[in-house]
Amino acid sequence: MADAKTADLMEKIVSLSKRRGFVYQSSEIYGGINGFWDYGPLGAELKRNLRDAWWYAMMREREDVIGLDASIILHRAVWKASGHEDTFADPMSTCKHCKKLIRSDQWWTLMSEQPWVQSLAELVQPGSGAFNGTGLMKWAKGKGKQLAPNLALVRKPEVTLSWLAQDIEKGKRPQDAREFYLYLASEQLGTTGFVTPCPHCGGELTAPRPFNLMLKTHTGPIESEDNLAYLRPETAQAIFVQFKNVLDSSRVKVPFGIGQIGKAFRNEITPRNFTFRSREFEQMELEFFILPDEAVRLVHGSVASWHADADLSRPQPNWGWEMWHRYWVAQRTQFYNNIGLGTDVLDYYWQKPEELAHYAKATVDILFKFPFGTEELEGIAARGDFDLTQHQKRAGKPLEVFDEELRAAANKLSAEQKQAFIAEVQEDWNDRNKSRDDAAAFCEKLLRGVYVPHVIEPSAGLDRLTLAILCAAYTEEQKSDVNGKVEQRTVLRFHPRVAPIKVGVFPLLKNKPELVGKAREVFALLKKDCQCFYDESGAIGRRYARQDEAGTPFCVTIDFDTLGEKPELKDTVTIRHRDDGRQERLPISELRDWLLMRIR
Amino acid sequence: MADAKTADLMEKIVSLSKRRGFVYQSSEIYGGINGFWDYGPLGAELKRNLRDAWWYAMMREREDVIGLDASIILHRAVWKASGHEDTFADPMSTCKHCKKLIRSDQWWTLMSEQPWVQSLAELVQPGSGAFNGTGLMKWAKGKGKQLAPNLALVRKPEVTLSWLAQDIEKGKRPQDAREFYLYLASEQLGTTGFVTPCPHCGGELTAPRPFNLMLKTHTGPIESEDNLAYLRPETAQAIFVQFKNVLDSSRVKVPFGIGQIGKAFRNEITPRNFTFRSREFEQMELEFFILPDEAVRLVHGSVASWHADADLSRPQPNWGWEMWHRYWVAQRTQFYNNIGLGTDVLDYYWQKPEELAHYAKATVDILFKFPFGTEELEGIAARGDFDLTQHQKRAGKPLEVFDEELRAAANKLSAEQKQAFIAEVQEDWNDRNKSRDDAAAFCEKLLRGVYVPHVIEPSAGLDRLTLAILCAAYTEEQKSDVNGKVEQRTVLRFHPRVAPIKVGVFPLLKNKPELVGKAREVFALLKKDCQCFYDESGAIGRRYARQDEAGTPFCVTIDFDTLGEKPELKDTVTIRHRDDGRQERLPISELRDWLLMRIR
Repeated sequence: MADAKTADLMEKIVSLSKRRGFVYQSSEIYGGINGFWDYGPLGAELKRNLRDAWWYAMMREREDVIGLDASIILHRAVWKASGHEDTFADPMSTCKHCKKLIRSDQWWTLMSEQPWVQSLAELVQPGSGAFNGTGLMKWAKGKGKQLAPNLALVRKPEVTLSWLAQDIEKGKRPQDAREFYLYLASEQLGTTGFVTPCPHCGGELTAPRPFNLMLKTHTGPIESEDNLAYLRPETAQAIFVQFKNVLDSSRVKVPFGIGQIGKAFRNEITPRNFTFRSREFEQMELEFFILPDEAVRLVHGSVASWHADADLSRPQPNWGWEMWHRYWVAQRTQFYNNIGLGTDVLDYYWQKPEELAHYAKATVDILFKFPFGTEELEGIAARGDFDLTQHQKRAGKPLEVFDEELRAAANKLSAEQKQAFIAEVQEDWNDRNKSRDDAAAFCEKLLRGVYVPHVIEPSAGLDRLTLAILCAAYTEEQKSDVNGKVEQRTVLRFHPRVAPIKVGVFPLLKNKPELVGKAREVFALLKKDCQCFYDESGAIGRRYARQDEAGTPFCVTIDFDTLGEKPELKDTVTIRHRDDGRQERLPISELRDWLLMRIR
Repeated sequence: MADAKTADLMEKIVSLSKRRGFVYQSSEIYGGINGFWDYGPLGAELKRNLRDAWWYAMMREREDVIGLDASIILHRAVWKASGHEDTFADPMSTCKHCKKLIRSDQWWTLMSEQPWVQSLAELVQPGSGAFNGTGLMKWAKGKGKQLAPNLALVRKPEVTLSWLAQDIEKGKRPQDAREFYLYLASEQLGTTGFVTPCPHCGGELTAPRPFNLMLKTHTGPIESEDNLAYLRPETAQAIFVQFKNVLDSSRVKVPFGIGQIGKAFRNEITPRNFTFRSREFEQMELEFFILPDEAVRLVHGSVASWHADADLSRPQPNWGWEMWHRYWVAQRTQFYNNIGLGTDVLDYYWQKPEELAHYAKATVDILFKFPFGTEELEGIAARGDFDLTQHQKRAGKPLEVFDEELRAAANKLSAEQKQAFIAEVQEDWNDRNKSRDDAAAFCEKLLRGVYVPHVIEPSAGLDRLTLAILCAAYTEEQKSDVNGKVEQRTVLRFHPRVAPIKVGVFPLLKNKPELVGKAREVFALLKKDCQCFYDESGAIGRRYARQDEAGTPFCVTIDFDTLGEKPELKDTVTIRHRDDGRQERLPISELRDWLLMRIR
């Protein structure tokens, strides 16, 4: 929940982002456009480094993932099949008084941000004793001018309480809010005739209605139902739709993954929290295709089951969906650790069985502790064969694979063993409320080596990650200068791997051609391999401070010793470390390798 | 113009693209969506390499260009100011008979692709003597079933001829077509009551109407005029709109550039030529901001003028727009040369003064010889200060810069010298039909060191470039195998810098664990630095052929000599070159550097 201190911190980050060229509001000179952001020179490099880090982790460091780069506009039928056209909607209310639109799941957050709710909350702190019925009425009267005349705080407590209860389960709302509302509901307000108030003006909200989040457009010259198209709300669907093409054109075999990075669009009702929830954003999604557990069992006799000490370091052939899911959670955590987001800033939320989508077997959110709250950075879902099956059905094209090893394993079974296998699968499916006939049809294919792969989906938001990296890096330091004057400095402690500028190169003085010449040489040496910044203006301390604020991990200074004033130091430079101000001396000949080792 | 052979070549490239995973039709399993394409695993890597090549050429190899990564959806006011909302339109006709839509400037190309027009063209080859009035009527009658009843071939010859004449000027239409139509027009047909025929059915086309090419959407929950937005039809405008933010947040000084890579959308009436003209595409645009010539003259006394032997290798302070424009043409040509597109496949088209947009001072198109014709890869325009001035005017926000050096130079002038300067500029502007008052106002600011920068815009299409790279790389070879059987092989001769896979790593035999173990070692050694492909299945010749078709420049084979069968060859491998089949032997310890030198 946003309080004064965290709001202040976010403001500082937003302001630094603009001042140093990380993030600007889109179309700012025209007053901006709500929910859209532009990345400036440093932001573009930072985002690029994060994009590359993901791509390399998937495509270079592994052998079992390949890439895709699909269009943003797909055939409308894709979104019918995926369910997005019918169900990708948020419940939303309109305020009858101020006409603002409120997303139902953001109602409390918006409420809690209003100063009048905050001061009301103080009144009803449990045990404060400051509150009673008369007190509330008196308070409400005093605040009358700020509120719409029909304010009734919480007039449908049963609705409010069910929302609150859900969110408290998820750890998303503070305990005191719940107590406050419980108190209000039970002590002060009736249960009939009341409505949920607008967080902005206190006016009456309409009942929530579903609002589809896909942005629409029309391709082709005539605007008609026939050429209605959507901007993709996620990159994932194109991977499913192109599954067969990728399979046929690459030499891959399940288990394998298809990864994609690209823009997606959601018509958010209330874009908020800087770049965190915007209408245009970039995703990094992997669909990792695996065998159904039943197939693993056929080939390997059993399926490895997960336990707390399970070794997740290397995939094993007898892994089923659960091990693969846990494996990807570990892999993605490792990825975040590698770019500087450690356990201190990450958290996890495992969806409860009742929260899961009907097709999902498990979903875990990797969360980051943003100043405005602990929020999702990436979701890792075990989606079964839902997506491929849906598209197979709707498109009428098989999206199955044939596995020789599976068929060979099946062929070794006797007729009785096959029957026993089918019966076992039927029993299992029946326990999960799935039809015995479907189970039999599935087994019949499986025994011929044919199946629709299941999928584990690690889906990360690049803009969220960029914001997380900025928030985690942001630090303020009190520092005395040579005269003892205390100065506040901002330092962005980016991991060198993701820092937009890797190294600053400075001649000690700009009016000494030998220093400048040597500094230009060092700059030229480093520039081709990484983003460098050459700076010769101002005192060296000022130049360090500028790079600290840009998050540059290293600065190299060329001084008179470099030129041989102390002969034993000839052709060495000073490297200054951003985070502790430590300086060390290194021969220019070793500089490039020294640097590359730290930034790659 | 597409003839059978080039159509055949394009078909082969399209088919290879799908088979090997370069490019698939978007949403193919749902019948596809016209004008949208997906890049498969090899295509995604190829495109990525090209994107990186551009970014590195701009951001790493230079010091005067910085990046931006702006949103696809901008404020609608941006497109009003830029003129796109009012004028970014293609003239288009509808066929009254078959209802198809025809872009006026594609009319001839579409016509010429029809077999009946081709056979008609043969009839009227100048000097063939086969054609006369009766002949035409007889021919038309014979073709009657293929044509709509109201076919009149060219019934508005004055329109047709003006189109033709323009395009022939641009070198875009073959001479014989012009002669053919001249012949038809003068000898056979009247000039009244006739209409332009539909290229598809010969039916009557409506008069051309402007058709705006921007894709529309609405942001926010209610679809209204207020929240109408466009998907950007080019990335450039965001650069102008954010010019001030970038200037204020980066330590840059004119001349400098802002570069951006990203998706753009145009609602093409007739997407065609594979990925060449699609509705969703990716641009790589640079806006390079320079001083107005008048400012250069103030500071340096004169402006360097371009001549054929001018040294364009390093920018000079006395360059005006013309030298900068020529410089960027040279730079961009160098870029294409560096990734394998040489003078044999490139061409240039300099727009004639009468073809230029009213604000443009010069535009040159860098063309590539595609199988379907010589077409634009990149446009390099000198756009003056049109864009910044437009946005400054519409947004009411100054987009000027202040130049200390310029002010200092102006301050050295006497009052008389200043007057003389102003008079000179007024004279010059007057010659170019620009107001003397505007010239005076411009000078007044200039003399205070303030001006709106001018811009040179190299604007390249990434999808076009990817297609060009594919077309240039495509080769077919006849090759005899060991038994003398001649086989047709496809080789993609990508430059190693852009090849999606850099090296294939093979153990000679897959059933020798020592070979496989060593090959895996070599693979692990190379994999982190570049995209590698490990392959152990099939005869070594077959594995080479697979990599040739994927465009992999090098293959490394681990054989018994690697293991020390010949002790002097221990720990060496065979490197096989794609283009000439040459093999050489190299120690594993040198392999990484050998490779990196060639692919970077």
